[in-house]
Amino acid sequence: MNKLLFDYNFASEERLPGGISRKALKICGDKAGEGLKKLRDMAEKGLVGFPDLVNQDLSSIKKLASEVRGRFDDLIVAGIGGSALGIEAVVNALLPYGYNALGKDLRGGFPRIWVADNTDPSKISGILEHCSPESTFTVVISKSGSTVETAANFSVIFEWLKNGVKDISGHIAVITDPEKGNLRAFANDNGLPVFDIAPSVGGRFSVLSPVGLLPAALMGVDIDKLLKGAADVTAGGYDKILTACAVYIYFMEKGRSINVLMPYSSRLEKFAEWFCQLWGESLGKKNTYSGKTVRFGTTPLRTVGAIDQHSQIQLFREGPLDKTVTFIGVKSHSAEKTIKGAFHKGFSYLEGVGLGELLNSELKATEAALLTSGVPSVRMDVDVIDEYSLGQLFMFFQYIVPVIGLSADINPFDQPGVEEAKEYAYGMMDRKGFEAKKSQFEEIYKKSDDFVL
Amino acid sequence: MNKLLFDYNFASEERLPGGISRKALKICGDKAGEGLKKLRDMAEKGLVGFPDLVNQDLSSIKKLASEVRGRFDDLIVAGIGGSALGIEAVVNALLPYGYNALGKDLRGGFPRIWVADNTDPSKISGILEHCSPESTFTVVISKSGSTVETAANFSVIFEWLKNGVKDISGHIAVITDPEKGNLRAFANDNGLPVFDIAPSVGGRFSVLSPVGLLPAALMGVDIDKLLKGAADVTAGGYDKILTACAVYIYFMEKGRSINVLMPYSSRLEKFAEWFCQLWGESLGKKNTYSGKTVRFGTTPLRTVGAIDQHSQIQLFREGPLDKTVTFIGVKSHSAEKTIKGAFHKGFSYLEGVGLGELLNSELKATEAALLTSGVPSVRMDVDVIDEYSLGQLFMFFQYIVPVIGLSADINPFDQPGVEEAKEYAYGMMDRKGFEAKKSQFEEIYKKSDDFVL
Repeated sequence: MNKLLFDYNFASEERLPGGISRKALKICGDKAGEGLKKLRDMAEKGLVGFPDLVNQDLSSIKKLASEVRGRFDDLIVAGIGGSALGIEAVVNALLPYGYNALGKDLRGGFPRIWVADNTDPSKISGILEHCSPESTFTVVISKSGSTVETAANFSVIFEWLKNGVKDISGHIAVITDPEKGNLRAFANDNGLPVFDIAPSVGGRFSVLSPVGLLPAALMGVDIDKLLKGAADVTAGGYDKILTACAVYIYFMEKGRSINVLMPYSSRLEKFAEWFCQLWGESLGKKNTYSGKTVRFGTTPLRTVGAIDQHSQIQLFREGPLDKTVTFIGVKSHSAEKTIKGAFHKGFSYLEGVGLGELLNSELKATEAALLTSGVPSVRMDVDVIDEYSLGQLFMFFQYIVPVIGLSADINPFDQPGVEEAKEYAYGMMDRKGFEAKKSQFEEIYKKSDDFVL
Repeated sequence: MNKLLFDYNFASEERLPGGISRKALKICGDKAGEGLKKLRDMAEKGLVGFPDLVNQDLSSIKKLASEVRGRFDDLIVAGIGGSALGIEAVVNALLPYGYNALGKDLRGGFPRIWVADNTDPSKISGILEHCSPESTFTVVISKSGSTVETAANFSVIFEWLKNGVKDISGHIAVITDPEKGNLRAFANDNGLPVFDIAPSVGGRFSVLSPVGLLPAALMGVDIDKLLKGAADVTAGGYDKILTACAVYIYFMEKGRSINVLMPYSSRLEKFAEWFCQLWGESLGKKNTYSGKTVRFGTTPLRTVGAIDQHSQIQLFREGPLDKTVTFIGVKSHSAEKTIKGAFHKGFSYLEGVGLGELLNSELKATEAALLTSGVPSVRMDVDVIDEYSLGQLFMFFQYIVPVIGLSADINPFDQPGVEEAKEYAYGMMDRKGFEAKKSQFEEIYKKSDDFVL
């Protein structure tokens, strides 16, 4: 099996002034150990479900995937946040570039895929213009069953579907809470296939649940291999996870307030966005479990190498020293392209070089350039990008993030700060029960023309 | 003409504890005024060229666009950083969603567009698999004419093209320095159409030069209207620019180290990435003009509303109070979709609501929720997203950023911090003249297995 490597040479005191010493590594590692112990306790008690997803029964997912295979030209996934970012990461990593522009034959009979996340009408109208109701399958995903953006988008999609097909059954699958919520009721009322998100699996930890796996299976992704990669992350123990946590904890405590993820692969761009939700929403917490106000957290920043060498590296090297960088390297790039002849003699130094080889040289060059500027970096390496390594990356970070949070006594599994905006929006839409929120909003949202130019 | 509004109600002391007072606005406005004076002096002396781009002669761009119109199925733009992000922003904002998946008839005879930025072989191979040489037009862009990623990608594209067509002329246009560089020489040697990037127009300020305008014109974008919007930003004077700068300067000085751009539109996602280069690379500077070490700059963060309400808002509200947020609102969303009937009675409050209307309610709700958490925000509003408003947004931020930099006595137009990584990479590829850099790199890039798990 391919190994996921975690390399912290350029974050260590031996290489970086102000880097982590062996003593600090031990201290921070002990903190991480306490966090891991809490996490494992919660998992054993059934309070935290993501670790056990590697053991789930995939038969109903595979059954549906096999039933619909070849029958649809388009798959719409209606979901937002944790119900969208995971499948987007899977698609970006595992399907060919510009997949939706390929003809059906080049797609191997699998559908195109459209993620209806934002309630931007240009996006939803755009998606529906690409599709025809009779050849479109829709997966609608909301853990609570009440996510307003998903409800709004799916209402539009559902009406479009009803007007275009005789029988909607066979065109929709639902992923939601096992019992509660309007989406569950809708699925039951209409006899639709429905898949559970266990209450113990939070949205941002759900990519390896049906939320990510059903759409992935519908696109022909090997979901067994995805789970195998995820399972193998902890198969050999937790040392690597604890070391990574220790390094992150150390630099967080040192006040490095921005955590940059910089994969050197365009196929991991969306993975970096998935990571940003996981890190930001899990760790950005005002209070500890015991009620102390801490305003914990650091800000995740998504970049892509080598692109952001031409955008953000100037700032990282010369601006405030407030960042740590996590590189992801890919040892062997698929479809490697070797430069046979340069188009001009000024570039003869490029002859015989592979594009992926160049990319990996740039990664090393950037690691070195950050080191000389005093910016700590760590590096994770995968052998290739495939289902297995993607499963590894998902699970590795799913462990890292809550262990860091629990070690600092904050709850990495809630998101109390997102409620207020939701409730104001409900108020504005005159939803029953939100009259007080509406008044409260109107009281707050007063603007003076003095401050508008 | 549609107005671009700048609203700083929720950053003002009258609404936000710790917000900007009228007195502070005056003080910071004076600083901005000094920065603007320097900028205008530099522009008058011909040292800074972006303001004058609104007066450029577009005839050669339009001539080429009209010559190639209808002749090609695919347009490849080979460029990275400032030579890619601008056209990506234009495409994202102005072309239909999933444009490359549309058939030729629905594209109005215009080509698909592929931006070959990263030297990720899966991306470049992927792009070439979509295209055929005889029906592909390539625009290759490098200001210096020596950008390694662009040279590498274009070498691969050029070889593919040579092997597929009898005569490469008519298939390539070049955008580069008016005199210097290998790319200029290549264009001259091959008699290719070539467009200038004036030495006074830096890469990240080049979207309104041929760098953005030629590919835009090839895609049928109204480039006159884009420039008209840009020109109108300063047509009525500089008050709005100075006020915006004053607000940003105030919160930078207060230590707010992260500047979030949050457009409530999926069509401005790539605009936000363009903004991140402009802000980060211009302002992230170690030294002032006079040589004082300041490590100036704040970190730009690209988000999209309402998507990031489900990803980053938890952190923004409850995590460290180190952010300011700049919203961009769109008053009227094109292709508005009204929800006629909800798919379940639990969502009846959504009936009669438009998706764009919902999006705008969520924007207001999020503004209010940030205000109650003590996070300053400003808001820019455009009436619609079109060429005109996009031109406004480009030009507005192109003024804001250097004015802030110059007011702090840093050089917003250079990028000394990106050289080192480039030179190490050249060394690794055994490029002549970089032998010393190679040795230096090898000395630095030593890793111990002790720090790899």
